[in-house]
Amino acid sequence: MANKGNFYTLSLSDLKIDDSIAEIGNEMHGLMRELYPICRSITGDGVRQTLNILQQDIPLNVHEVASGTKVFDWTVPKEWNIKDAYVKNSKGQKIIDFKKSNLHVLNYSVPVHKKVSLTELKEHLFTLPEHPDWIPYRTSYYSENWGFCLSQNEFKKLVQDTYEVCIESSLEDGHLTYGEYYIEGEHSDEVLISTHICHPSLCSDNLAGIVLAASLAKYLSRASLRYSYRFLFIPGTIGSITWLCLNEPIVPKIKHGLVIACVGDSGRFTYKKTRQQDADIDKIAAHVLKDSGNDFEIIDFFPYGYDERQYCSPGFDLPVGCLMRTPHGEFPEYHTSADNLEFVRPENLAGSFSMYLAVLKRLENNKKYVNQNPKCEPQLGKRGLYDKLGGPDNGKALQFAMLWVLNQSDGKHTLRDISERAGLEFDLIKEAADVLAEHDLLKEVGADNEWSH
Amino acid sequence: MANKGNFYTLSLSDLKIDDSIAEIGNEMHGLMRELYPICRSITGDGVRQTLNILQQDIPLNVHEVASGTKVFDWTVPKEWNIKDAYVKNSKGQKIIDFKKSNLHVLNYSVPVHKKVSLTELKEHLFTLPEHPDWIPYRTSYYSENWGFCLSQNEFKKLVQDTYEVCIESSLEDGHLTYGEYYIEGEHSDEVLISTHICHPSLCSDNLAGIVLAASLAKYLSRASLRYSYRFLFIPGTIGSITWLCLNEPIVPKIKHGLVIACVGDSGRFTYKKTRQQDADIDKIAAHVLKDSGNDFEIIDFFPYGYDERQYCSPGFDLPVGCLMRTPHGEFPEYHTSADNLEFVRPENLAGSFSMYLAVLKRLENNKKYVNQNPKCEPQLGKRGLYDKLGGPDNGKALQFAMLWVLNQSDGKHTLRDISERAGLEFDLIKEAADVLAEHDLLKEVGADNEWSH
Amino acid sequence: MANKGNFYTLSLSDLKIDDSIAEIGNEMHGLMRELYPICRSITGDGVRQTLNILQQDIPLNVHEVASGTKVFDWTVPKEWNIKDAYVKNSKGQKIIDFKKSNLHVLNYSVPVHKKVSLTELKEHLFTLPEHPDWIPYRTSYYSENWGFCLSQNEFKKLVQDTYEVCIESSLEDGHLTYGEYYIEGEHSDEVLISTHICHPSLCSDNLAGIVLAASLAKYLSRASLRYSYRFLFIPGTIGSITWLCLNEPIVPKIKHGLVIACVGDSGRFTYKKTRQQDADIDKIAAHVLKDSGNDFEIIDFFPYGYDERQYCSPGFDLPVGCLMRTPHGEFPEYHTSADNLEFVRPENLAGSFSMYLAVLKRLENNKKYVNQNPKCEPQLGKRGLYDKLGGPDNGKALQFAMLWVLNQSDGKHTLRDISERAGLEFDLIKEAADVLAEHDLLKEVGADNEWSH
Repeated sequence: MANKGNFYTLSLSDLKIDDSIAEIGNEMHGLMRELYPICRSITGDGVRQTLNILQQDIPLNVHEVASGTKVFDWTVPKEWNIKDAYVKNSKGQKIIDFKKSNLHVLNYSVPVHKKVSLTELKEHLFTLPEHPDWIPYRTSYYSENWGFCLSQNEFKKLVQDTYEVCIESSLEDGHLTYGEYYIEGEHSDEVLISTHICHPSLCSDNLAGIVLAASLAKYLSRASLRYSYRFLFIPGTIGSITWLCLNEPIVPKIKHGLVIACVGDSGRFTYKKTRQQDADIDKIAAHVLKDSGNDFEIIDFFPYGYDERQYCSPGFDLPVGCLMRTPHGEFPEYHTSADNLEFVRPENLAGSFSMYLAVLKRLENNKKYVNQNPKCEPQLGKRGLYDKLGGPDNGKALQFAMLWVLNQSDGKHTLRDISERAGLEFDLIKEAADVLAEHDLLKEVGADNEWSH
Repeated sequence: MANKGNFYTLSLSDLKIDDSIAEIGNEMHGLMRELYPICRSITGDGVRQTLNILQQDIPLNVHEVASGTKVFDWTVPKEWNIKDAYVKNSKGQKIIDFKKSNLHVLNYSVPVHKKVSLTELKEHLFTLPEHPDWIPYRTSYYSENWGFCLSQNEFKKLVQDTYEVCIESSLEDGHLTYGEYYIEGEHSDEVLISTHICHPSLCSDNLAGIVLAASLAKYLSRASLRYSYRFLFIPGTIGSITWLCLNEPIVPKIKHGLVIACVGDSGRFTYKKTRQQDADIDKIAAHVLKDSGNDFEIIDFFPYGYDERQYCSPGFDLPVGCLMRTPHGEFPEYHTSADNLEFVRPENLAGSFSMYLAVLKRLENNKKYVNQNPKCEPQLGKRGLYDKLGGPDNGKALQFAMLWVLNQSDGKHTLRDISERAGLEFDLIKEAADVLAEHDLLKEVGADNEWSH
Repeated sequence: MANKGNFYTLSLSDLKIDDSIAEIGNEMHGLMRELYPICRSITGDGVRQTLNILQQDIPLNVHEVASGTKVFDWTVPKEWNIKDAYVKNSKGQKIIDFKKSNLHVLNYSVPVHKKVSLTELKEHLFTLPEHPDWIPYRTSYYSENWGFCLSQNEFKKLVQDTYEVCIESSLEDGHLTYGEYYIEGEHSDEVLISTHICHPSLCSDNLAGIVLAASLAKYLSRASLRYSYRFLFIPGTIGSITWLCLNEPIVPKIKHGLVIACVGDSGRFTYKKTRQQDADIDKIAAHVLKDSGNDFEIIDFFPYGYDERQYCSPGFDLPVGCLMRTPHGEFPEYHTSADNLEFVRPENLAGSFSMYLAVLKRLENNKKYVNQNPKCEPQLGKRGLYDKLGGPDNGKALQFAMLWVLNQSDGKHTLRDISERAGLEFDLIKEAADVLAEHDLLKEVGADNEWSH
């Protein structure tokens, strides 16, 4: 392991964040405000600007993959960029203006500049009648088209007229851009944290995910870690497909993973299980959510949603789940102009940060041990670990936890498993394991041989 | 596969029966009326006549196995035939007459012709006091005896007298007779359909089964089939034991099977599981019954009932279930003269035909595939299989079904499994699989190598 | 197998105890009264006297293991003996007197004889304020100390004074003593019955266990047994650790086991499962408790309690459960002077004896067979085992049981498993198996090869 200096000797669980959690929420919201105006898509300068801003906080590697590159069944598309777009009426008034909201343009619109009748114009307009004030978000990545999105109320004001439509975009050979940040831990086994970065001015889906991933990366980079961590900032679908195709040799190192999505609203947490359904990350996430004492939901895997659909394709079947607040499509603001900076509050972001950190801490601490005196109990008393006087069992929780850890540490059960079987809190079980390991009564499984560098 | 001519290119699922289902019920009832008067038993001319009549519709092979043939722990019994039987009072009046109902004779009665007192006669009479108008059905296959069955009301009229009892039967070395019809499908793997043919004038148990098996055989013979089908028309117990003993090399080809029993009444369907409890046929039958929207019952395997007790003996343990309406012994008419042509209605037979056909169709369609692009999703859009415009998920059921089929087609899950996990209807999942297979995105498991001819 | 004489040809299930069960309870209580006054500990003459008394009934081997012997992570401690102990006030009156109750001395107290102030005395006194009349039971085996236990009411009477404390004990190199009784059965596979013998005048925990083990041993020694039985009378914790360490080669022979504890009160039975959770003994105990018709409780394994914590340590993981009435710590009299001869009644002991015997009988009878005619059913009729006349299924319970046993006897299912799957009583299933085995239709699994002598 590379020398990270003395500062990095704290383990993840020893780093304290309680005092600064509100501050972290504010910082995340500040970063989100900075990223909000940028018009992102699955390729183009919007993604580059976004990654450049993130590089101010974390030493992100930015990768460029040329248009036309074959990635499994797909091809990296042409790069899309946009300067301006508007619709003017015959009086020359801009009635739709990209500068006011980048949602006004159908994302990936080909360039267009012509005069059209109201009838023709309407074939290229998208509204959301059930929320007449909101602009919907629409894309057309893989089918060349142009269009504008606007609120139903603005749409209703349109009259018979000749309209000038102008989209100053380009769709040309270029690159797909993504960011990657690898934090080396004690072991080469990896935890994957993936977030998509292709949405323009939309906050819970998914600027919140971008700033949460960045904050976690920044935070973890300061700790001494058991696992290595890989953060991916990628365009949805084509980005994960591209990364998986170009990095197949790395894939087997991924032992656990989470796709970050929809973490900005105030809703309860929802964990979507991996395709495997009973992966360690599934058990850990469920355990931590339960321990939180708050309402939550666990849902089964399904093969649509975010990039977990690629990570969990049958040829990879990675243990990658998805930890959200309110899932996509289940809040009315989803994919509309209402998913904005007011909808996502700093305290929501701070709460999501805490929850993710709790899951990662649990994962770091979820070790597996082998009892070094497996035949009968070791004599805890002579090590000062046992009540000296036979009598009522008061305040013996730690002692019980030690007996559980000793009894179950046969190299098959993780501390989480033991916590569940014993019905004792994970932290107590971990404390017991730490004490026993200090006394050489336990040895971590794989600390010498199963793990590889 | 043998050339069946152009008529046979329709797959089972493409054959339509909706218009003619009532007609099929009437045809089945007509055949049942033709078979009803014949006095069948586990051997003898009654069985031969029955099979001859069935041969008018299906090219049944009729097998004759000689009395005395050893079949596992059993021996093929002597052949029983009967011409007439009666009991006359001292005035020469026939008070019990075989010609009026073949149930009047204890089935397999040895010949007898003598005068007996009322006391002696009573030792050979069987009645059903709880249904005083009905004649019970009794047999004595493996213990030589003679007797008469009559209604309790007739029994009560008997007075002290000298009675002439006469049973003109024969019990001599001969043969056990059974019918077999094999329909060759694309693969040599077989579906077994077995029905017993040993009951005299009794309709739900089991003339209904005979006519249902015959109708299914006739119908399937016109379709292009994936599986091969073997229909057995055999005497109960000794027939299945004989067939299994004489056909052991064929047994491993049987991949699924159903014993037809008690399909003529108007009760809900009951499926009795195989000894294996979770065979494909168990899952399929449960799935189809559930999809039917009607009340039904699934019961666990037990080692008595019909010929499934032989197919599911531990040395064979075949995946053979039993699909009934009201099970044997659970309707009062069971094994009495009340299980007659009025008790079994054409519409009951038609419903049983439909249910069996639905199960067999599901079985034919329950394929297993391997995704040909298992790493990440294939790009459905470029094949015209995916919405072009990112937007609300309306009317995307087929698209979701395609994603499920792709995600789960790892060669381990059948379409039924996928349907269950996805919570989507089987037909939708099948449609998705068909579309994907047409685009070479799926390949059927075993289509080339696992299946054998 | 050693010749035990004609008297011993009765199998365990044939021995009848119903008439004498009350008498057995009285005998057990009588033995308990004889053992009650002895001051036992984990070593010393109290244990020797106890074992000597038991030897009057059963030919117990008494083993002596020298102090200082290393047993896994532990060391056999010095031997403790005590002659007398008291506390006198300045007037020379004995205010605490070992001769009145051996609970008055902190068990394993080092010798002491000196004058102390009330303040110093109080540092060595133990009471039970919530039950002011009761003397608590306290020990200090592995930490040298001295002390007295007394009721809270006596404690309150203590005044400022100079007290003479005297404990005439010795703690010197000697031996740890335990008793062992091995009953050879047909097979060398063993059932372990273990009870601790280290408690002084305490009845449910665990004089009741000692007398129950002794009575079972006496009873079993008179029967013809399938399994061999090993009875251990050992000091808690250090005793089982010592036995396991010195007898490791025997350990793999232990196929089932029960730790006897807390069997003297009138509470319902509680069965604590083995670490394996689904061992045969777990299934058998649950089955027998359910069949008893009385209220009972099954609790999961936990790694504290009695010697099951050693037998179930991960290096051994033996299928040893614990069958109790009210568990330790769940009745207020536990480890106090109130757990006395009145608390434990003869009828409680008799009930515990019956329950243990029922479990052991079930275990003895829980055979596994292979059907010798696995292909189709054997013809039961020709052996006189089947109704001759086809007719209503009355009184056919045994016949159904035979069909179940034949169908499930594939060498994998025990009679208990079959009883559970069939929903038929164990005794009926056993009767069916016996009949079938008599007719050579079943062969016991391992009767020839799997078992070893």
